[in-house]
Amino acid sequence: MTGKVFFSVTMTLDGYIAPESSPDDIDALRRGETTPSLKHWMAQWSRLQGWAFGQRFTRQNLKLGEGGKEGRDNAILEQTFHRTGASVMGKRMFDAGEVAWPEEAPFHTPVYVVTHEVREPWERLGGTTFNFVNDGIESALKQARKAAGERDVRIAGGADMILQYLNAGLVDEFSIALAPVFFGRGVSLFDGIDAEKVTIHQTGTESSSKVTHLNYAVVRK
Amino acid sequence: MTGKVFFSVTMTLDGYIAPESSPDDIDALRRGETTPSLKHWMAQWSRLQGWAFGQRFTRQNLKLGEGGKEGRDNAILEQTFHRTGASVMGKRMFDAGEVAWPEEAPFHTPVYVVTHEVREPWERLGGTTFNFVNDGIESALKQARKAAGERDVRIAGGADMILQYLNAGLVDEFSIALAPVFFGRGVSLFDGIDAEKVTIHQTGTESSSKVTHLNYAVVRK
Repeated sequence: MTGKVFFSVTMTLDGYIAPESSPDDIDALRRGETTPSLKHWMAQWSRLQGWAFGQRFTRQNLKLGEGGKEGRDNAILEQTFHRTGASVMGKRMFDAGEVAWPEEAPFHTPVYVVTHEVREPWERLGGTTFNFVNDGIESALKQARKAAGERDVRIAGGADMILQYLNAGLVDEFSIALAPVFFGRGVSLFDGIDAEKVTIHQTGTESSSKVTHLNYAVVRK
Repeated sequence: MTGKVFFSVTMTLDGYIAPESSPDDIDALRRGETTPSLKHWMAQWSRLQGWAFGQRFTRQNLKLGEGGKEGRDNAILEQTFHRTGASVMGKRMFDAGEVAWPEEAPFHTPVYVVTHEVREPWERLGGTTFNFVNDGIESALKQARKAAGERDVRIAGGADMILQYLNAGLVDEFSIALAPVFFGRGVSLFDGIDAEKVTIHQTGTESSSKVTHLNYAVVRK
């Protein structure tokens, strides 16, 4: 019995899961500077992720302190966390996260980073270990599955990575928190999807006051 | 007391409200031919609109005969129809519809077509009259409001027309039936939205087995 492969993201109504960013933004973040461009990015990110920021789970997981909301949004964040036995992510997501996550990175499981960079595993406080995989997405998934055991593997992001797994037929199910927000441009989730190949059906929808949680299963052919 | 201005469309999860089409497709439709391209278009359209086709209201309104489903999807289609006192549409939607709608066109109210074409009103059986408006979207809306009285004005489509009204701040609310379908390409609903200007909030979500009905209000600034 192995777990499922899934992804879970927040998306704007016009289809973006992150604002556009430039390498300069990550450099600024690394230097601890707040450029206008970075400030704009953070403001957009807050509009998108605002529903999650105030939740008890998010505060706890990012070490922001006690308290926070405890309704369905919070329960959904908790469920997503607890089902995840390992995560897979792309190099760009890791690069941005490396300078943004707290020392106790918010995964608390093994993470497999698909990259050309050869690098020793990087252990963080609290149980997160970043492993750098150089031989492609299937290898990364295989390692993540093994590490996850009976729990599920989350394709954490970014959009490129999610789409690679989706188009390769390697995703079982996914959930989207659809935010009532427009970006106009940004990192599109589904731009490049292989529509001939990926067939889905709805498995449930749930609305909080802030977002709509959409759940889908990928149909096996 | 005047009615609201709204739109109501079915959208794929990757953001399209219609498959791509070419002028050749409309020509083929006009000649009553079924080209491979038109066949593909119809197949995609059916995947998108399939949730509505089997409903009692749709069958009745398109003169497809008795019967059909009568659950929430059907009730939502009926509500949308009954609230509408007049519709506004773009020239391309009219051109395609002119050759595709039954003689008793499915609007049963005045329809205002925004176009450069100068043409006398075109009356159809069953109460639909197409009026051709040559002086822009605000004029078309003004005429539609007047015709609708206390009922609402629907911006029927296509995507261009909807976006023009949305970006001009002339839409009060909208609903999207989000279909678990990917097109990969097609007529995007929100590509070109003025994200700085259009702010929305959720007013309700409801899921049937086939689609998720998303409802939003545009925030007045």
